[in-house]
Formats: sequence, C-alpha cells, structure tokens
Amino acid sequence: MLYNVGYLQNDPEFGNIKKNVDDVYKKLENTKDTLIVLPELFASGYNFNEMSEVRSLSTKTGEGYTFEALSHLSQKNNLHIVFGYPEKDKDKFFNSAALISKGRLIGNYRKIHLFYKEKEFFSSGDLGFKVFDIENSLKIGIMICFDWIFPESARTLMLMGANVICHCANLVLPFCPDAAITRSVENHVYYILANRIGTEARKETHSFIGMSEIISPTGELINRSPKDLEDIFTTKIDTSIADKKDLNPYNNLVADRRKEYYL
Amino acid sequence: MLYNVGYLQNDPEFGNIKKNVDDVYKKLENTKDTLIVLPELFASGYNFNEMSEVRSLSTKTGEGYTFEALSHLSQKNNLHIVFGYPEKDKDKFFNSAALISKGRLIGNYRKIHLFYKEKEFFSSGDLGFKVFDIENSLKIGIMICFDWIFPESARTLMLMGANVICHCANLVLPFCPDAAITRSVENHVYYILANRIGTEARKETHSFIGMSEIISPTGELINRSPKDLEDIFTTKIDTSIADKKDLNPYNNLVADRRKEYYL
Repeated sequence: MLYNVGYLQNDPEFGNIKKNVDDVYKKLENTKDTLIVLPELFASGYNFNEMSEVRSLSTKTGEGYTFEALSHLSQKNNLHIVFGYPEKDKDKFFNSAALISKGRLIGNYRKIHLFYKEKEFFSSGDLGFKVFDIENSLKIGIMICFDWIFPESARTLMLMGANVICHCANLVLPFCPDAAITRSVENHVYYILANRIGTEARKETHSFIGMSEIISPTGELINRSPKDLEDIFTTKIDTSIADKKDLNPYNNLVADRRKEYYL
Repeated sequence: MLYNVGYLQNDPEFGNIKKNVDDVYKKLENTKDTLIVLPELFASGYNFNEMSEVRSLSTKTGEGYTFEALSHLSQKNNLHIVFGYPEKDKDKFFNSAALISKGRLIGNYRKIHLFYKEKEFFSSGDLGFKVFDIENSLKIGIMICFDWIFPESARTLMLMGANVICHCANLVLPFCPDAAITRSVENHVYYILANRIGTEARKETHSFIGMSEIISPTGELINRSPKDLEDIFTTKIDTSIADKKDLNPYNNLVADRRKEYYL
C-alpha cells in the first residue's frame, strides 16, 4: 500500500521542551496524511549533566506537553508520529520513542542499547523490540540511535514483520548514515533515519551530524539531508515492496537464512 | 600481533585452471610472509553452463593442480592463502574456500548461502562457520560472496573469535564493498574482500565489479582496488586491535549485546 513518509531534522535547545515542541509543531503544520519520524530526545535535548535534569525533563508515556501537542497535531493533520522522549516509569528512566497515530498513542519503545553516559542516566530498555501495525499494512519498527550498530536490532524488527524501520537518532559518530543502506539491503526494508543537528556544549560537548535520510528496500538513497541545516523531507513509499523478500527467482532473504549455523 | 595481509584481484579465464593458477603463482612470486586472500572460484571461473563443467573442474579438498601449486608457493614464500575453489566430496559439489598455511592445508569452508544459479550446481555448505587460528593470534574467519548479505555470517565469525574476516567473492551487485565497512564497524574486525574483475559471457553474462579492499576494525578503508584492473595489495595489521571490543569506557560491542531480545 502507498504511504507518505518522512522525517524532520531539528536543532533543539537543551532543556527547553516547550520551545522545541512548538517549533516542530509549526514546521509540521502543513504536513498531512504522513508518517513522520523525529529524532531521539527531540524536545528535551540529549546531553544531560545531572540526574536532576533527567528527572525534571522526563514524563510518563502519554503525558506532558510533548505528548499533548503531538497528539493534537497528529489528529488534526492525520499524522503518524514517531518521536524520542525521556520516559519516567516509577523510579526508572528510559530513553524511549513513542508512536502516536491520529491522536492515539499506539506504541512505546525503550532503547535497548544505551550509548556512553546514557548508562548513567537511563535504564536499558526492558520491553524488547516491537512492530506497530497500522491498517495491517504499514508495519513500523522503531530503533533509537546506537541500536543501529547491533545488526540484530534491524534484523529482529524485520523478522517481526517491520516493513519500515523508523530510527530516531542523535548521532555523533559518522558511520550510521551509510550503514543504514546496508541495513535496508540486508533486510529489504524502508529505512527512515531522523537525526538532529547542532552542538550541545555542556559538561561535555557533543556535535550531531544530521544526514537524516530515507532509503528504499533495494538500497536506493531516496534523500539525505545536510549535516548542518534543519530540514523536513517526505516521499511516497509502497510498503508491499518491502514485504516481498525475493531477490531473484532463487534467493529469498528470509528463506535462505541458515539459522542452524548462526550464533 | 603484527601481520602482513592482503589480497589479489584477478580476471580468470573460465575453465582454464592451469593458466589461472600459473598466473596467480607468478603474481605472488615476490610476496612473502603474508596472509593473501584470493577470489571465490579464482581458478575455475564462476559462470557454469552445465553440471558436467562443475564435475570436471572440481577437486577433493587438498587435491589437484590448484592445491599443489598453492601449497608449494605458500611453503616457499611463507604465506597463508585463502582461496575459493569448486569442491567435490563423493557425489556432492560445494562452492568452497580453503586455507593453506606454509604448505599445510589448515581449513576448509563450504559456502553456506548460495547465490542464484549456484543452487543448480552446488550443495549448500554443511560444515558451518569456522575460525582458523594461526599462532593463537591471527584468527581467520572465511566467508564466500553472497554470505555477506546475511549479517549473521560475519557476526557468527566474530563471535567465534575471528579478528580478520577473509571474504572470497565474485560480486556482480554493487552493495558489498560499502556494506563491508558496516561489517567491520559492527564487529570491530579487519575485513579483507578479494573480488574478481572481468566478464564471463556464457549462457548468461556476468560482469564482476572488482573493488577488492581492506578495512580496519574502526571502519577505515585502508585500500580499495579499481573496478576493472587486476591488482595486488598488502598492508600490515595489528590483530590485537580487533580483539578488543571496547568502543569507549561505557560500551563493548560484545558485552552490550542483548541476546534475550534478538530473533
């Protein structure tokens, strides 16, 4: 089936959730009937100095300004939005990404592979990978940033039925945008990478590399954004292409797996 | 430990084993004390029309002109050579790669993931992935061509302890040389891709893309050969770099795996 899909690449101001959410809201005001992926922690910022900042910027899934605004926007414009946010659940905090579809909260994913000092602030995801199904046709697998380096992440999502991998990221290292082409080809899925730009100079300084992109199941780079500019891109995809795993009359990417020989 | 490693990129004439082996022998005559990787089916050619050709070009592991010549050369020049050849074992045929070290047959790998019409001529590998250990330091994992598209191939070899992946190929599609960078980074291993060039115009016509290469464990492309020229390249590597899987003080590529969530 045909769907409009895309991403928004932003440059959030650390800790200023209202400003960052309002900014994204405004930029998406004319985008309708589309799956939109936003970066990891797109409204809170990434580079926490202290646990108190994580506490004050995190919300329960479905609550707080970010969820309210994106629910409203997604209902008004008929959007599915995947976005990263810091999640609070009782006394634990997760680096999470939620899916809101037309005003309804559909899914939540907690980052399984934490990067670097995230381990000081967040618990590792405890919900596993999940695929969220829209209209029994658009099958959304969510990963967050460092999950990419483990081939098992995208692989697991594909084997669970994902035809579009939505990758919310705050990338600082250079490898992922090209590796995502490999992920698309090896899994024959669409891949939407939503990354941020800009620099957060706090106790440590992190600069983010942009290069958000959309890749087809055959590895075609449909679009790649600049390293240093905010950007929105949308395109039309046919999910049925990603549901077929035949490469040629002899090879099928799923049937040809030899699980008995894999560790 | 430091080792010289490299590859040879050739343009064999279909079916002319003697000529192709003699040609490689001559090209390697001045290469000493090195691990050298040759392409898949480097001496027989790739593009079989009929089963009778497979039968007449295949040998038992360790027998025939190819093994004799490479054993002699590897002993004379203190080489470890990984090379692809068509293997006959009773009534079965495999697309295989052997490792000869200083005159001794050390290992044999039978291609696990067959591509396209190879399925008409060869049986799928039934020996699994294996790592061949030289001096308890150079740990060689072998894969053949289409194995690359399954991330489990390189992954399994790394988890079995390989610090150098030797990839014998006859690539016709364009994705592998870049995907190999992803494989190096996700597994933190050295990667040697030995591909061939040229065209085999038989019942079907296949053109091979060259671009043999060596990549470091951090994804540095140490060398990539042209698409259309024969080539030899060697360099020095430090296998201890690939044995360490720490990316930073917080992340280790093996310890951070969350197997409980992988399919």
